Amino acid sequence: MGTRLTPERESELFAAVLDLLREVGYDALTMDAVAQRTHSSKATLYRQWGSKPKLVVTALRHNKPVSLAEIDTGSLRGDFHAALSRSDDCQMEKDSALIRGLGHAIHENPDLHQALRELLIEPEMTGLETLLDRAVGRGELRADNPALKYVPHMLIGAFAARQLVDDRAVDQAYIRDYFDAVVLPALGV
Amino acid sequence: MGTRLTPERESELFAAVLDLLREVGYDALTMDAVAQRTHSSKATLYRQWGSKPKLVVTALRHNKPVSLAEIDTGSLRGDFHAALSRSDDCQMEKDSALIRGLGHAIHENPDLHQALRELLIEPEMTGLETLLDRAVGRGELRADNPALKYVPHMLIGAFAARQLVDDRAVDQAYIRDYFDAVVLPALGV
Repeated sequence: MGTRLTPERESELFAAVLDLLREVGYDALTMDAVAQRTHSSKATLYRQWGSKPKLVVTALRHNKPVSLAEIDTGSLRGDFHAALSRSDDCQMEKDSALIRGLGHAIHENPDLHQALRELLIEPEMTGLETLLDRAVGRGELRADNPALKYVPHMLIGAFAARQLVDDRAVDQAYIRDYFDAVVLPALGV
Repeated sequence: MGTRLTPERESELFAAVLDLLREVGYDALTMDAVAQRTHSSKATLYRQWGSKPKLVVTALRHNKPVSLAEIDTGSLRGDFHAALSRSDDCQMEKDSALIRGLGHAIHENPDLHQALRELLIEPEMTGLETLLDRAVGRGELRADNPALKYVPHMLIGAFAARQLVDDRAVDQAYIRDYFDAVVLPALGV
């Protein structure tokens, strides 16, 4: 009781949660399965994380430690390409699978939606806003550009549509091309 | 044996399939449940449609009889707004739920993916291409615009991201604003 997990043990546990998520999907993922896979007790899992949505989202967040706001190359295009080069193609396909999988689950699970907003979406949005604000400050784009509020929507579209429309996996070259062809022109950059 | 369903009976059956799809999702939808809900035999369902993916996609297609290519207002913006005004907000939320639900299911079900491509995605893409080709022909946009191939991705993003990012339902006013703020500027229109 009250024993805290070591950071290494916690990382292992989060990795196992994400593996399970990819294998069986959110709905079929149970705290029993997590306990079994990670050789922990369900009591420990609930004590540390409170609920399945919180455990899952904390595991997702743990694997996304990159803060966009740290990147500052001097141009919006440079910032975005730098952010992109931090994750490899395999990671991008995993992110893509995540967006595909979560779109439905969040609709059915208000707790998951809430946890996602707090731990994953809002921090990413804040990071993206920092990059965009800096571009506005440099005079690269206008603060009143109506596309500004839709940058996340454009980017999510790139991930969500790749398989549906093109029947191909997301990779860096594709996202880079999409950013240059769609996001920058929509922003008037 | 060999009895064909009347068009009315077929419409009823497709409506019941879509209701079930929204209630339980694709994975949990069984041919048994469809048979029970529609008071038909499983043998009839399999004889008429061959498989669950084909039945589901035919039902989806049945509810989307609008051909984009018929619309011709003289401008890309006019065409798109006309297409949009053909479906009401309730229908748009249903389409949005569909995109959320299918993103994951098609990844897991190659048969569903194939049926979707043939019956739903390719006809819609062809309709969209017709509208865009006409706009190119009128000189509204350039044939070599790099955003041209990403119009479906941008639109899918609008549907997929609305709940995730804004926590709101998709409606006509939103899609119209997105089209004017993102799609037209990206295309240089």
